[in-house]
Formats: sequence, C-alpha cells, structure tokens
Amino acid sequence: MIELFKFRTEMRISFEDVDLFGLLHNAKYFSYFEKCRFEYLRNLGLIYGEESLPNVECAVVEHFCSYKKPARYDDVIEFLIRVSYIKRSSLQFQYILRRKGEEQVLTTGYTNLVWVNFESGKPKTIPPHIKDPVVEFEGDNLDKMPGNPVAK
Amino acid sequence: MIELFKFRTEMRISFEDVDLFGLLHNAKYFSYFEKCRFEYLRNLGLIYGEESLPNVECAVVEHFCSYKKPARYDDVIEFLIRVSYIKRSSLQFQYILRRKGEEQVLTTGYTNLVWVNFESGKPKTIPPHIKDPVVEFEGDNLDKMPGNPVAK
Amino acid sequence: MIELFKFRTEMRISFEDVDLFGLLHNAKYFSYFEKCRFEYLRNLGLIYGEESLPNVECAVVEHFCSYKKPARYDDVIEFLIRVSYIKRSSLQFQYILRRKGEEQVLTTGYTNLVWVNFESGKPKTIPPHIKDPVVEFEGDNLDKMPGNPVAK
Amino acid sequence: MIELFKFRTEMRISFEDVDLFGLLHNAKYFSYFEKCRFEYLRNLGLIYGEESLPNVECAVVEHFCSYKKPARYDDVIEFLIRVSYIKRSSLQFQYILRRKGEEQVLTTGYTNLVWVNFESGKPKTIPPHIKDPVVEFEGDNLDKMPGNPVAK
Repeated sequence: MIELFKFRTEMRISFEDVDLFGLLHNAKYFSYFEKCRFEYLRNLGLIYGEESLPNVECAVVEHFCSYKKPARYDDVIEFLIRVSYIKRSSLQFQYILRRKGEEQVLTTGYTNLVWVNFESGKPKTIPPHIKDPVVEFEGDNLDKMPGNPVAK
Repeated sequence: MIELFKFRTEMRISFEDVDLFGLLHNAKYFSYFEKCRFEYLRNLGLIYGEESLPNVECAVVEHFCSYKKPARYDDVIEFLIRVSYIKRSSLQFQYILRRKGEEQVLTTGYTNLVWVNFESGKPKTIPPHIKDPVVEFEGDNLDKMPGNPVAK
Repeated sequence: MIELFKFRTEMRISFEDVDLFGLLHNAKYFSYFEKCRFEYLRNLGLIYGEESLPNVECAVVEHFCSYKKPARYDDVIEFLIRVSYIKRSSLQFQYILRRKGEEQVLTTGYTNLVWVNFESGKPKTIPPHIKDPVVEFEGDNLDKMPGNPVAK
Repeated sequence: MIELFKFRTEMRISFEDVDLFGLLHNAKYFSYFEKCRFEYLRNLGLIYGEESLPNVECAVVEHFCSYKKPARYDDVIEFLIRVSYIKRSSLQFQYILRRKGEEQVLTTGYTNLVWVNFESGKPKTIPPHIKDPVVEFEGDNLDKMPGNPVAK
C-alpha cells in the first residue's frame, strides 16, 4: 500500500496543536491534511495563490481519519500523500502518517473533493490543467474505481 | 433517523472559524463535534473538570464527516447528538447539523472513542459511572450492533 | 475601573483551547476577545451577518494582552467588555477576565480598531449607525482621550 | 532597528489561517509568534522535546502586536526574531514581519516571558543553560533596559 504514495512531506507537530496529554489534537489532523493537499498540488505546479481562489470552486465533501497511534508534541511526522482516484468532477486524497524514520503507521485518512459550480451548486468537470498533471503524476497508481479508502 | 437524536445543542458559527469563502472551515467541524460531546456528557452529569482528566483514558480512534451543505458565518446551527452504540470499551457519537429552524441536513458525522489504559495501550472497560447513564439516556435508541454510522 | 465595564458575557474554556499544562493557550485569548467584540456589538443590535461583511471595512491595528493568572480547562470565565474611546475612525475595546463568581482579575487586554477604505487603504469615518449606539451605551464611561489602555 | 534582528525564519500563510477577507486572522499572528520562539530556541540548541516540558516553567505574561499592513493567504513571510532583553527571571521576544524579498514592515510584536515556579507561583531564575546561549547569541544587541518594545 505504502509504495502507492509517491509524494511525501514532513511537518513538525507544534506546541499549539497538542492537547492536555501532549498528543496532536484529533481535529488538528485535518489541518495538517489540508497543508498536505496544498503541498501536493504546489509540487505539481498547480498554483494556488489568492488570485486563483475565486475560480477554485472545489469543496470538501467527505473526511475520514483513523487514529492508530498518537503523534506527539515536537514529533517530526512524515506525511505520505496520494490522489487515489480522479473522476469527472471528484477526486480523493489519501494520507498515511509515520514518525520520521519509523515504519509504524500512526494515522490514515482521506479527503473527498468535488468540483462545484458555486452559483448553481451543481458538480462541474475538473479543469484539465488540474486533472492532467495529477493523472500523469499518479500514473498506474490511480485506483480503477473508488473503493476501500485507505488500506488497514 | 433524526428522531433517534434526543440531545440537541446550538452554537453560532464564529468569524474566526470560517474560511475565505465565508464557510465553516472543514477542519473546524471536528472542533464543534468535540464541544457537542462535552455538552452531551455534561448534560448527563458526567463531570469533566480538570481534576478528572488524568483518569479519562479515552481516545478518539476514528472520525468521519460528510459535508452536504455548508454552514456559514454567523449561522446558528442546531447540533443533534447521540451515542449510537456502546460496547465494553468503545462507543460512537453521531452528529447531525441543521441550520436552526430548518429541516435540511447540512452535515453528518461520527466519532469512535475507545477507553484505553494509557500505560499499557490496551483497551479497558468503560467505567459504569459513565456507561450506565448513557445506556439509560439512549435506551432503545442504541443500535444493536455498530453498523451504518450515520444514515444518508 | 471594573465599574466602567457595563457589558459582560460568559464563556467556558474548551478542551481544544488549552495547552499541555491545562491552561488556556496564550494565542487563544485573542479568539475569545473576538467573540467578546461580536457579542458586544450584537447586544447593541449592530448586525454582523454575512451580507454586511463586505461593508465592514474595519481592521484590527493593535492588540495587547496582560496575562496575570491563567484561565484553565473547563473554567467558566466572565468577560467584561467596554469601548474605552471612540474617535472619528478608530475605537478601542477593552477586556477584563475573571473566573465566574470571583473577584480576582485573570487577564486584561485591548483591541484597537480602525475603519479603513479597503481600496485606498485610507482611514474612513466610523458610520453613525455604529458609532451612535456605542456612544449612547457607554455614555460618560468613554475616556476623554485614548490613554492608559487597561488599568493595572 | 532591523539590523538588531539576527535570527530569521520563513513561513507560508496557510489557507486555514486567513479570514473571510483572505488576510491572516489577527489571533493567528500569535500562533506564528510562538513558532518563531521555538525556532529561535531550537537554533540555539535549546531542546524543547516533550520530556523537557515539565521543567519549562515559563509563562507568557504579556503580548503585543501592531498590525501595519496585512499578511495574506499564500504569502511567504519573513519573520525577524530577537531577544531584546533578558533579566533574572524574564525576557522579551520581539518580532518583525515582512513579505519575503520586500522591505516594508507588515507587523511588529513582542512577547514577555517569565520563569515561574509553577507550584508556588513565584518567579524563579532563568536557568543558565538557557540564559547563557541567548546572551551569547544576542551579544551587544541586548537592550540595556526593557523599554520601547518594538521600534515604530
């Protein structure tokens, strides 16, 4: 499973993001997931500066996180990120978290995104300048159909 | 489905929690879910003051959120909350969000919690002083087995 | 000093907002201050729904907080709030925090706001529909000149 | 003034941290300040891993921020950081924010910290293993007395 994840980034768990027990707060994982998505897209040259935002028209429609082992204050976490499928108007990001230099999976998660016409509320086609680089980058690693979100 | 949710609370979506589009940020829903859990437990007299925290030994192990329609800045949101199942060492909270006074479901979500011995990492039995009031409050609404997390 | 504060609101310190020591995180005080400002303005009937936001054109230009004693997890905090001065294009909010039912001051702080034309970046006159109710509410409690932000 | 700041770090303003206007939210500056302090100390080899935290006994006692020009979504901000004074039990961090590659100062701010015996609540002496490296690093740039927090 892990070999399907071609893009990786590292982030350190900050003091502000941990809870009273010194563990990364459960809601903050989704903030880190967002940073992962932006880094993944930035890596593909998909610019997300402020001027581009009004045309983004892309909404998070589903979120999932499985917390297996906690990430702790000051841990340097390796985030493995992939797009697992991309369809006409939707795609899925998947994440695997490990402590840097360790094999054990701490967390898995996914985000389902849909491109939407914000005025009509109807789904719209993912623009080719976004879809094509993702398809090219992921190649054969893309799932044939949306299925098991993240391997156990 | 909605009639299974006996506990409700209201919260207003704050300026700080919305994104550049004026919509409640996707990660912040999980912060509101946490406030829901605390209110639910507080309503049952399950005190969660600081002195009780070292004994809590309860961990979020899975999170899910389905975003159907956005909650917006300054919306007053009605949160419907239930415990859907409670087993020896685990339980599930479910949430339904609606704008106050409206029928339309904006969001559904769930949190799976497990009681754990923080030293050994092994699951432990939910203490009766927590389990019993929950079972009594939910009554026949408790699912016979953990299944479909939140109705579509 | 405290008798100058005519508006009060209460908020409970949430689990997510405390740090590893169980204390309200220093940055989060400013989030609570913001909620205070909105509640103060809401109390005066100054509507701040989403449709009004494009016309707000009001910027935080200075922030100060003096942390004397910590607010802790699950504390119910009484926030005392006043506008201390209001000039042509600027005003100051001041805050005093105390644990509910206690005299001891935990925190003092202030926020300086300026009304700005967002296109030109120049200060603009505070609209009378905002200034007048504030002046009427605060009455003689308004400082004659901006000075000592919050009494020690 | 700026030449007094010998330590610099860069951070990108994330989507989650901006408000409805695309500007870094006023409370979030203090989160970035905290990251600055940790980076400054890490750069001096002052380890702040979890095991060291129970002995930290250091509290933020005052915070100030002057917002001159906004930092925006996706901006790469250069943070200039210094310790401006260090006394027996207290010190001050100062910050200057600029957009990377630009001269204009966006924001200035400071944090006053005091070392405290958490049991007695009394100030305690800053441990030499922290004070000495700071004094050595800042050298003659240290203010002779705590005064004007950040130059206008």
